[in-house]
Amino acid sequence: MPLTLTPLPNIPLIQPGDDLARMILRALDTSGLQLETGDILVLTQKIVSKAEGRLVHLPTISPSPAALELAEKSGKDPRLAELILRESNAILRTRPGSVIVEHRLGFVCANAGIDQSNVAENGATCSEWVLLLPENPDKSAAQIRARLEAATPWQGQAGKRIGVMIIDSHGRAWRIGTVGMVIGLSGLPGIVDLRGTTDLSGYTLQITIVGAADELAAAASLVIGQAAEGTPVVHVRGFPYPLREGSLKELLRPKDQDMFR
Amino acid sequence: MPLTLTPLPNIPLIQPGDDLARMILRALDTSGLQLETGDILVLTQKIVSKAEGRLVHLPTISPSPAALELAEKSGKDPRLAELILRESNAILRTRPGSVIVEHRLGFVCANAGIDQSNVAENGATCSEWVLLLPENPDKSAAQIRARLEAATPWQGQAGKRIGVMIIDSHGRAWRIGTVGMVIGLSGLPGIVDLRGTTDLSGYTLQITIVGAADELAAAASLVIGQAAEGTPVVHVRGFPYPLREGSLKELLRPKDQDMFR
Repeated sequence: MPLTLTPLPNIPLIQPGDDLARMILRALDTSGLQLETGDILVLTQKIVSKAEGRLVHLPTISPSPAALELAEKSGKDPRLAELILRESNAILRTRPGSVIVEHRLGFVCANAGIDQSNVAENGATCSEWVLLLPENPDKSAAQIRARLEAATPWQGQAGKRIGVMIIDSHGRAWRIGTVGMVIGLSGLPGIVDLRGTTDLSGYTLQITIVGAADELAAAASLVIGQAAEGTPVVHVRGFPYPLREGSLKELLRPKDQDMFR
Repeated sequence: MPLTLTPLPNIPLIQPGDDLARMILRALDTSGLQLETGDILVLTQKIVSKAEGRLVHLPTISPSPAALELAEKSGKDPRLAELILRESNAILRTRPGSVIVEHRLGFVCANAGIDQSNVAENGATCSEWVLLLPENPDKSAAQIRARLEAATPWQGQAGKRIGVMIIDSHGRAWRIGTVGMVIGLSGLPGIVDLRGTTDLSGYTLQITIVGAADELAAAASLVIGQAAEGTPVVHVRGFPYPLREGSLKELLRPKDQDMFR
């Protein structure tokens, strides 16, 4: 079965308080797509954060001494440095222009995932606003999923069983270029454990745990692109693994098993 | 435009010397797919390596003192340790069960990408054979691409302009689960540089370089799965960036810019 990723058209610019599930249902309708069991919807972090009101106006932030020090070392705005510290469990590396942290959600990323681009309210361009990641992306995904599934019993049919993921673009160790990665999910596996399965020759597989949700995040990110707040939701059909309950936590390598902190 | 990834059926088990381009053309034909300009074909490392005769019989390998030491620290077979050393520029981390290297091709991966699963010759199951990565995957991709493009002027039409990628499954720092990553490519961008572009609010983008080929590699890996030597080739339609000449080197972060070696 082919894997098909379709960007949904006509998602408007998101304002705090917007009902994303309703907008997605409308966009699916416009696209002539009906949700089927096994489908997955992938949303960018940015629209979820905006809908949840995670915008912060920098002039409201007073940098602590630690933030002033981080700003000095990184060249970041001290108020942004303050937010990076508040949003992080630990600072892993600091260089001019670059702060790599363990986010409070547990993953490693730059600048605590705080977005300075395209976060203006009401269409105004203003770099004094920044956007934090959603408070609890697994929960955000679950809420959107519940709304979408509740809307799917059409014409007497049973409701559909779908998955929802929230993704962001992350830099990586060793390789150039950002790729889409999951920051929250509901209703699909984060990882798929193939231990015990054998390949066509009957030899037990060496590679045993696949980062399936991250692979899908990368695929969706390709479709969304970077400049396209116009297509911040992707409909996926043909995900090859069985759906189940899942969590971001599956994808987080415990510190004591991580050789590259 | 949707992104569609279709695994090609009926690719036979590959033997050294096999003509992959011819097998792909036959499989496309079986699938009713005709190559169009902008299409990309993604191949697993394993079939390219096998076709190129990169199988090594472990009893032919004599471990050096350095290999014996690496075997001791990692718990690997000393002959495999010898091959890992030969295939690597540097050993980055060694722990029981785990050797992370900079491969001679420049990327960071486990065990120098040497595959012990499913590498039997003539269908026999035998763990004494291992499979090295292709000698020069960019070149392998270019050769397959040239063959496929040469076959595409049908019925008086001009030849088609396509891309070809070779991928492998890599572990990652910080996150659990392997994901597909490019190890060689021809005819498509490794990275896409969005510097200078603006988003919908007119704000200059923060995220400026996208690992587009790696995003596609992850997507293709999802379709291929891990156990499926039966579908080691994926046809891609709808890659959203313009095709151009490209190279693996675009994706390799220079050592002095890498904070996580």
